[in-house]
Amino acid sequence: MSNKIKIFDSTLRDGAQGEGISFSVNDKLKIVAALDNLGITYIEAGNPGSNVKDLEFFKKVKAIKLKNSKIVAFGSTRRKNISAREDPNLDSLIDANTPAIAIFGKSWDFHVSNIIKTSLEENLRMIYDTILYLKEKGKEVIFDAEHFFDGYRANSEYALNALKAAVDGGADAIVLCDTNGGTFPNEVYEITKKVSSIFNIEIGIHCHNDCGMAVANSIMAVNAGATHIQGTYIGFGERCGNANLSSIIPNLQLKMNLNCIPKEQIENLTSSARYIAEISNLKLSHGMPYVGRGAFAHKGGMHIDGVSKASSSFEHISPEVVGNKRRFLMSEVSGKSTLLPLIKKVDRTISKNSPQAQRIIDKLKELEHMGYQYESAEASFELVIRRFLGKYISPFKIDYFKTIGEHSTISHDFTASSIIKVIVGDREEITAEQGNGPVNALNKSLKKALEIFYPQLKEVHLTDYKVRVLDAENATSAKVRVLIESTDGQDSWTTVGVSTDIIEASLIALRDSIEYKLIG
Amino acid sequence: MSNKIKIFDSTLRDGAQGEGISFSVNDKLKIVAALDNLGITYIEAGNPGSNVKDLEFFKKVKAIKLKNSKIVAFGSTRRKNISAREDPNLDSLIDANTPAIAIFGKSWDFHVSNIIKTSLEENLRMIYDTILYLKEKGKEVIFDAEHFFDGYRANSEYALNALKAAVDGGADAIVLCDTNGGTFPNEVYEITKKVSSIFNIEIGIHCHNDCGMAVANSIMAVNAGATHIQGTYIGFGERCGNANLSSIIPNLQLKMNLNCIPKEQIENLTSSARYIAEISNLKLSHGMPYVGRGAFAHKGGMHIDGVSKASSSFEHISPEVVGNKRRFLMSEVSGKSTLLPLIKKVDRTISKNSPQAQRIIDKLKELEHMGYQYESAEASFELVIRRFLGKYISPFKIDYFKTIGEHSTISHDFTASSIIKVIVGDREEITAEQGNGPVNALNKSLKKALEIFYPQLKEVHLTDYKVRVLDAENATSAKVRVLIESTDGQDSWTTVGVSTDIIEASLIALRDSIEYKLIG
Repeated sequence: MSNKIKIFDSTLRDGAQGEGISFSVNDKLKIVAALDNLGITYIEAGNPGSNVKDLEFFKKVKAIKLKNSKIVAFGSTRRKNISAREDPNLDSLIDANTPAIAIFGKSWDFHVSNIIKTSLEENLRMIYDTILYLKEKGKEVIFDAEHFFDGYRANSEYALNALKAAVDGGADAIVLCDTNGGTFPNEVYEITKKVSSIFNIEIGIHCHNDCGMAVANSIMAVNAGATHIQGTYIGFGERCGNANLSSIIPNLQLKMNLNCIPKEQIENLTSSARYIAEISNLKLSHGMPYVGRGAFAHKGGMHIDGVSKASSSFEHISPEVVGNKRRFLMSEVSGKSTLLPLIKKVDRTISKNSPQAQRIIDKLKELEHMGYQYESAEASFELVIRRFLGKYISPFKIDYFKTIGEHSTISHDFTASSIIKVIVGDREEITAEQGNGPVNALNKSLKKALEIFYPQLKEVHLTDYKVRVLDAENATSAKVRVLIESTDGQDSWTTVGVSTDIIEASLIALRDSIEYKLIG
Repeated sequence: MSNKIKIFDSTLRDGAQGEGISFSVNDKLKIVAALDNLGITYIEAGNPGSNVKDLEFFKKVKAIKLKNSKIVAFGSTRRKNISAREDPNLDSLIDANTPAIAIFGKSWDFHVSNIIKTSLEENLRMIYDTILYLKEKGKEVIFDAEHFFDGYRANSEYALNALKAAVDGGADAIVLCDTNGGTFPNEVYEITKKVSSIFNIEIGIHCHNDCGMAVANSIMAVNAGATHIQGTYIGFGERCGNANLSSIIPNLQLKMNLNCIPKEQIENLTSSARYIAEISNLKLSHGMPYVGRGAFAHKGGMHIDGVSKASSSFEHISPEVVGNKRRFLMSEVSGKSTLLPLIKKVDRTISKNSPQAQRIIDKLKELEHMGYQYESAEASFELVIRRFLGKYISPFKIDYFKTIGEHSTISHDFTASSIIKVIVGDREEITAEQGNGPVNALNKSLKKALEIFYPQLKEVHLTDYKVRVLDAENATSAKVRVLIESTDGQDSWTTVGVSTDIIEASLIALRDSIEYKLIG
C-alpha cells in the first residue's frame, strides 16, 4: 500500500447537485482557494460543456496560481457513433484548459443497453477513443467507471472490460464509482481487491451515502488497494450526498498513517469545513465527525467528569489536532461540574454544594423549559447568573420601543422604522432609525441611543443572526428562538432570546449582546 | 447467522445526551409509542437513579400496554467495595419495574485504574455481582461493555475477562461498545468475530459516529456474528451521535434479508423518522439515508433523465418501500424535463422547445439569484408560471398594510397589531388584528379581510413556518427566506417569500398560500 493517498474533491461538481446548493462563479473561486490551501490533490470544478457559468469559471480560474491542487474538468465519453474529434463536448473539455480531465463512462451493461441505448462494444470503443484522444492532447485523464459496483454484480466480465478499455486508452487512474450508494463495505473491499489484482494502475473510489456508509466504504477500498479517493469536502451532493472528505482525510491520516494533505494542514480541517459550509450557505451539521461544532461536545455529567479526568475517556482524538474544540454543554443533564466554572467567574465564593449553585441550576431548567438554550449562548447565560445573584445592575434600561412596518402605496416599497427610549443612570435618550426590516431598524436605533453613553459600542457589530422556529406546527404564532453572534473585532460572543414575537426575541438577544460587551 | 436481529433503541437515553435535545416525560412517552408501533425490540428509556424526570417516566410508562417492545432501564455496575444489594442505584433500577435492564461496566483496564480507580479484580466482581443480583430479581440483563474495542486493543485478555464476568453472572446478552467511536470497520469485524467464537451468547454492538462509520461498523459486526444492534433511531446522541437505526434497519432487512422489524412496518420507517425528529425538535437532515426528504431527490438533468427511464439508474431502492418519495428538484441545473410537467399543468400547449419554456427557466434563474428556492415550494412556483404567462388575474390585491410592534410601559407587555386593506374586484375591505407578533397579526388580518369574499379560506390553516437567514453574516440586515406550509385538511402546499424584511417575506409567502388555495 502506497503511503500517499490522492484526494479528489468534487464539491463544485457532484456537490453542486445537492439540494439547496447553488454556486456563483465567485463562490466557486473561493472554494478552489480554500481546497488548494488545504492541499487537496484534485479539485473537480464542473462540466465546461454544460452551462455558461461553468465556462466563465474555467476562464477565471486559469488566472489563479494554485499551490497544491490541480483543477479537473468533468465530462462524459464521446457520443455514440461519432469519432472523438467530432464531439463538441470533448472540445469544451479541452478548451477548459485544465491539467486533468475526469471522464465518466458506463460499466454496467444494463445502462449501456437501456439508458444510452447502444451496443456493448460501441460503449467500450467510446471509453477507449475518448481517453486516447484526450491523452493525445496531453491531458492527465481520470476514468470514472459509473455504476461500477452495480455493473460488476450484474456482469463482472463486462464491468472489467470497461476498465480495460480505459487502461488501454491510456487512463492515468480508474475510479470505481458506487453511483447509487447501495454497495456494502465488505463488497467494496472484495471487488476493489479483485480490480487491484488485475490492473497495475492507480485505483480510485467514489462513494455515495445512500446506505449511510460512504466514509467506511472509502476506507475499505483503501484497505483493498485504492489510493485515490473522491468525495465532497463536507459530504453534500445528490440525494444523500457523497463520501465526506472531512471525515475521510483524518481517518486516513491520523488513524492509518497515510498522507492525504500536508501534515501542517490537518489543524485547518475544521476551519475549512466551516468556511466551505458558509460559502455554500449551508449549516454544517453539529455532529459532523471531526469538524462539527458538537463533534467534541460533552453533555452527560458522567462523560464530562470522565473527560475532565482523562480526555481519552470519551474522545477518540484530541480536538485541537483537527482545529476543533472541546465543549462542555450547559444543560439540565450536564450537572453542576459544567456550570461551576461559569458561576465562579461571576462569584468565586460559590462552591459546588452551596444552595445558590442549586438555585442557578433550577433557574436554568426553568428557562430551558421556556425555550431558551444556552448550549451555544454562553454570554446570555453569564448574564442570567449575574442577574440571578442579585449583585448586578444593568448598564441601561429599555424604557419604550415601537417598531412600524409599512407598505407605502406611493413608492410600493416596504419601510420599517423603530422608535426607542433608553435610560442610563438618571439620563434618558429617545431616538429613531429606519432599517431593512423591523429587527434591523430596532438594532440601529438601540445602538444609536446607547452610543451616546457608551462610545465603545461603535466597535461592536453583529456577525450572525439565526432564527429557529421552536414549535413550527403553531405556524405564525409559534415561539421563536433568536441567536445573535456579535464581535468587537477581538472577541466574539453569542446571545439568545425567546418569544412568540420575533421582534421581542431579537430585542432580548440584542440587549444581552450589548450588556455583555459593556460588562466585559 | 440467525435470521432475526434485535434492535435496541437508545434515543431516550444516549440520544438525550445529544446537543439541543431535551425531552419532557410526555415527549418520551410519545417516542415509546412510535418505536413500539414500528416493532423495535428494546427501548432504552433512561437511568431511573439519575433524575426525577426519568423516575416519573418509568412510573407512567408502566401504564402503557406495548405491542412489540420491551422497556429497558439503564444503569451502571454496583459501586466499588460494597455488595450489590447495598447499592441504592440498583434498587432504583429494580424499582423502575422494566422487564429488561442494561448494565454498563468497564472493560478497558485504563478506565478501571484511572477513572473509577479500583483494582482490576474488583471491577470484574462488580460486573459479576451486579448481573447475578439482577438475574435473581428475574430481570433480563444486557451487559454493555463500555470502551470494549479500546479496551481490547489495550489489553485483550482483560477485556475478554470483563465479558466472561458478565456471562458467568448470567447476562442474557453482551454488547461490545465503541464508546469513543474511534474503531474502524475491519477492526470491528475481526474483534467481534473473535468474541463470537469464544462466547456462545447473544452478542450486541453499540457504535458511535465519531469517525463517520457507525452504520458500517454495525453492519460489519452483524457480518461477524452480532445479532443485537444498539443505536438511536435518527442517529443523534453525544458528540457525533450514535449508529443511525433508520439506516441500519433497511440495510439489514432490505439488503441482507435479516428481520429487524415486522415486514409491514418497513414502509413506516420514513414517517417514524420525521415524527421522532419533530418530537425531538430537530430538523431531520435532508440527506439522511432512506428517510431524509432529499434521500431520493434528483437535481442533475442527466440523473432526472436517467431515473425517468429506469429508476434503478440512480436509486438503490424504490423510495416507496421505506415510505419515502422520489422528488425532482426544480433548479437552474435541473433542466427543462423537470419543469415541463409543472408548466404543462398551467398551459398544456407549451412544449419542451417552445421559447416560453426557456423564458420560464430564465425567470426561475433570476428568482433563484434573488434568494428564492422552489425545491420545496412547488405552490409558489406554480404561481410564478401563471403570473409569467400573463393569463392570470390574482383573486385579490393587497393595497396597503401596516404592522406595529410596541412595548407598553404600563403592562410591560409586547403587543403587535396589523392593519390591512385588500381589493377584490371592485370592492375593498380594510381591517385590523392583534397577534403574538407582527407576522401572526398580519396573517390574522389578511385572512379576516379575505374570508368576507372567500369563505372557503376558513378551512385553511398554516402547519409550518420556517425562517432561513440567507446571508447570516449581514446579521439583522440579512435577507431571509420564509417557507410556509398550509393545509385545508385535505391537501397541503408550501409557499416561499424572500426579503430583507421578515414581515415582507412572510407576507409574500402568506399571499401565495391563499392564492394557491383560491385557484386550486
